[in-house]
Amino acid sequence: MSTGSGYAPGRARQQQILAEATRAFGRAGFDGVSVQEIAEACGISRQGLLHHFKSKEDLLMALLRQRDEADQELFQGVLRESGSPFRAIVAVVRANAAAPGITAMFTQLAAEAIRPEHPAHDFFHDVYTRIHHDLRATLAQMQREGTLVTTADPEKLASGLIALRDGLALQFFLRSPTQNADEMTDTLETMFSLLIA
Amino acid sequence: MSTGSGYAPGRARQQQILAEATRAFGRAGFDGVSVQEIAEACGISRQGLLHHFKSKEDLLMALLRQRDEADQELFQGVLRESGSPFRAIVAVVRANAAAPGITAMFTQLAAEAIRPEHPAHDFFHDVYTRIHHDLRATLAQMQREGTLVTTADPEKLASGLIALRDGLALQFFLRSPTQNADEMTDTLETMFSLLIA
Repeated sequence: MSTGSGYAPGRARQQQILAEATRAFGRAGFDGVSVQEIAEACGISRQGLLHHFKSKEDLLMALLRQRDEADQELFQGVLRESGSPFRAIVAVVRANAAAPGITAMFTQLAAEAIRPEHPAHDFFHDVYTRIHHDLRATLAQMQREGTLVTTADPEKLASGLIALRDGLALQFFLRSPTQNADEMTDTLETMFSLLIA
Repeated sequence: MSTGSGYAPGRARQQQILAEATRAFGRAGFDGVSVQEIAEACGISRQGLLHHFKSKEDLLMALLRQRDEADQELFQGVLRESGSPFRAIVAVVRANAAAPGITAMFTQLAAEAIRPEHPAHDFFHDVYTRIHHDLRATLAQMQREGTLVTTADPEKLASGLIALRDGLALQFFLRSPTQNADEMTDTLETMFSLLIA
C-alpha cells in the first residue's frame, strides 16, 4: 500500500508516535514532555502529530489502552498455559519491571486518577473493576474445581493480589529504585505462596 | 502567656492553620487550594499565614510530618498494648479511613513523590525506609520469640504488609469510593490472617 511518497501509512505512523511518547513519558513524566518534543523524535511536525492524536491527553489515553491490551494479552496467555493467575500476575509485573520509567508513570497516573475530574479517571476505574471481576471469577472457579486450597473469600483475595502488585511497585520506586527488579517479583511470589498455601 | 491582645499564641495559630489546610487539601487536593483560601478560613491575611509557613509547600511538609507523627503514635500504642503489628497497621488504616479526603491526598502524594525532584520525595523515601525497617525488626523479633508462626523472610513480609495497606487504599478510591471503609479494613485483616497463618 506504500505510495512511494515517503509518508509512512497512518497505522505505522501512529505506532511510531506511541513508541516515542512511551519513551519520552517514561523518561520525563507526562508533564515533563511537550507534544513538540515527541513530534521531533518522530521526525514530523507538531501539526503532523496532532493529525493522529488530537492532544497530549488523547495520546496518553491511546498509550494507556495499548499498555492495558498488552498486559491483558500476556496475563491471559500465561493463565491459559499454566492455569495459575498468580504466575500470570508475576509475568506481567516482570515484563513491566523491564521498563521502569513507564511503570513509574503508570503508578503515578493511577494515583492521580483517584480524582473524579482527572482525564484518566474513568479509564482506571474501568480497568480496576474489570481486572478485579475477572480475577475473582478465576479464583472462585479454582476453588470449585479444588485447584485452589484456600477457602478465603475470592472477592477479598482478588483485592489483596492486586494490592500487592500495586503497593510493591510504589515501594520499589520510593524506597530503593536502584534495586534489582527481581527482588520485587521475588517478594510478590513469596506473598502469593503464603496467601494460597 | 496570653498577652490579651486578641492574637492567638504562635503555636495555637500554627495548629489552626494546619487543621484548616488539612480540611481544604482533603476537599480539593493540594493543587486545588490557594494559600489565600486557607488564610481566609483561619480569619487571617495571606501575609499572616506566610509568617507561620513560608509557602504552600512548607505547609504541606508540616502537614505530612504531623500526620506521620500521629500515625506513628497510634501504631506504637496499639503495638505495645496488643503485641501485634498487624492490629497496629489495621488501627492506623481504620483511623485514616475516617478522613477519606486526606487519605486520598496522601495516596496521590506518595505516588507523585516517586519523582526524585518532587518536594516530598525525600520525606516519603525516609518514611517508607523507616516503617519498613521497624516492621522488619518487629517481625524478626516475633519469629525469634515464637509469637509469629510463619518462617517467611521478615524483609519480604514487611514489604508485603505495607504493599497491602497502600494497594488497598488505591483500589478503595479507584474502584468503589462510595463503599463502606470497613470493607477495606476487613480485606486487610483477612489478608494478614492468611499471610501469618
